[in-house]
Amino acid sequence: MTDLEKQLDFIYEIDKLKYIERMTCLFNSTRNENDAEHSWHLCMMALVLHGQSNEKIDLLKVLKMLLIHDIVEIDAGDTFLFDTKKNHDNTEEELKAAKRIFGMLPEEQGVELIKVWQEFEAAETAEAKFAKAIDRLAPMMQNATNNGGTWAQHNVSYETVIEKKKRIKDGSESLWNYAKGLADNYYKKA
Amino acid sequence: MTDLEKQLDFIYEIDKLKYIERMTCLFNSTRNENDAEHSWHLCMMALVLHGQSNEKIDLLKVLKMLLIHDIVEIDAGDTFLFDTKKNHDNTEEELKAAKRIFGMLPEEQGVELIKVWQEFEAAETAEAKFAKAIDRLAPMMQNATNNGGTWAQHNVSYETVIEKKKRIKDGSESLWNYAKGLADNYYKKA
Ligand SMILES: [Ca+2]
Repeated sequence: MTDLEKQLDFIYEIDKLKYIERMTCLFNSTRNENDAEHSWHLCMMALVLHGQSNEKIDLLKVLKMLLIHDIVEIDAGDTFLFDTKKNHDNTEEELKAAKRIFGMLPEEQGVELIKVWQEFEAAETAEAKFAKAIDRLAPMMQNATNNGGTWAQHNVSYETVIEKKKRIKDGSESLWNYAKGLADNYYKKA
Repeated sequence: MTDLEKQLDFIYEIDKLKYIERMTCLFNSTRNENDAEHSWHLCMMALVLHGQSNEKIDLLKVLKMLLIHDIVEIDAGDTFLFDTKKNHDNTEEELKAAKRIFGMLPEEQGVELIKVWQEFEAAETAEAKFAKAIDRLAPMMQNATNNGGTWAQHNVSYETVIEKKKRIKDGSESLWNYAKGLADNYYKKA
């Protein structure tokens, strides 16, 4: 196979992301969001909000992270943040998925994208911290417009929301202030 | 309003892109694609295919173009390429939409994104030619997996497909060879 054939096969394969439904719904809506449109929206958020990052960041790296961050879910499925039964660490299953899917690409390209995905998951670099902050913020904005959305449906406490979301602060103090305000307002803590 | 408030309002507003349905369907499917997931898929194509560009390109610029290229459709609606009744030029209506929607952002940022959108529409720079090539290629790949898709539904001739799509070559010779092969194969010209 030529490099182009491998790249095209990968492009056909990742169409599956459009069928993976998230728990959260669009703003003011009961329509569940899918992983592909979610990924687009996070990229748009990064594009307009990157100046809110605590540290100087490489926007291209952040966009790469956000474009590919959920592709492993094609094999491994969506992990719901408030699911207490599931292991939320960077699982074997997700690594296997990353290797299979990014492994469809020409080698050098596949290796690069696996590294970008691992950097995102590790949440240690400035870019990963900011990308994670965006990924954590978006469903809070959605829930806030949907009478609590998944917080209400799953009886999630205020303390759990804050505990699960406070790392937004690692990426952006200003976005964390906004995010905490959304939770405070819904849980009437303001 | 603070810059952050303006940015957040914009982020809420562009959620509407997820409700705009395209004529084309997902691969091997009868489910229409929406503009948000389409934009994500084009970005992924650019990410893996940018080495196929005729000229050296700035990938970040290309991604910005593809992320925002359809946002004007929130006000102006989707223009179907093979619609012979509609003006396909960069219309007044689209410019008005760009000014309203990107105009929600802090001024400097809004002006930048209008410029990026106009550069894409003009299709003169290396980045715009490549981004346009990707946008023209994707629905051909979709139609090829859907028994001709919109080509079949609207009785589009082989000559019209080639005429409307040949500018893919301006962005990438190799992608044009692939795209033309998809049309040749469907119309049995190979
Ligand atoms: Ca996820």
